[in-house]
Amino acid sequence: MSDDNSIFIGNKPFMNYITGVVMQFTTKNSSEVIIKARGKFISRAVDVAEVVRKRFMNNTVTISDIKIDSEDFTNKEGKELRVSNIEITLKKI
Amino acid sequence: MSDDNSIFIGNKPFMNYITGVVMQFTTKNSSEVIIKARGKFISRAVDVAEVVRKRFMNNTVTISDIKIDSEDFTNKEGKELRVSNIEITLKKI
Repeated sequence: MSDDNSIFIGNKPFMNYITGVVMQFTTKNSSEVIIKARGKFISRAVDVAEVVRKRFMNNTVTISDIKIDSEDFTNKEGKELRVSNIEITLKKI
Repeated sequence: MSDDNSIFIGNKPFMNYITGVVMQFTTKNSSEVIIKARGKFISRAVDVAEVVRKRFMNNTVTISDIKIDSEDFTNKEGKELRVSNIEITLKKI
């Protein structure tokens, strides 16, 4: 979990992220929540967005934006790596 | 690989998909290519899109659309499952 209305997806139990996003919309009354992930967690971010949208928020939120990007960096061994990321914005209808 | 200008991402070697997308733009002269994936291959689809866009096509293509969705189905044991999917459209600039 992170600052403001962003939820960063990692390897915690799946339901933690679902609860995090739903509470952001309900308890904290945000009009939008941004689900962010990098690398292998991108698939999980899509799952979180879909489960929140269809099951927990019963289609009262919609996907308003999806961005993908990638960053290059050099690791300790001097090898160049590229890691992709995604940002999925859910918005109250 | 699949019909027309769609490339379906699975567990073949990563470079197969890169080559498939690049050839669709070059040899087959398509103006856009749709990269599709389900479940855990979603992260890989984002990697393919990013590597094609930045490294192989040198930013001569752009991401024109990204769609996510999910399907419910019941498996042989009668368990309900949901599988997410993604469609990333790359387009010549």
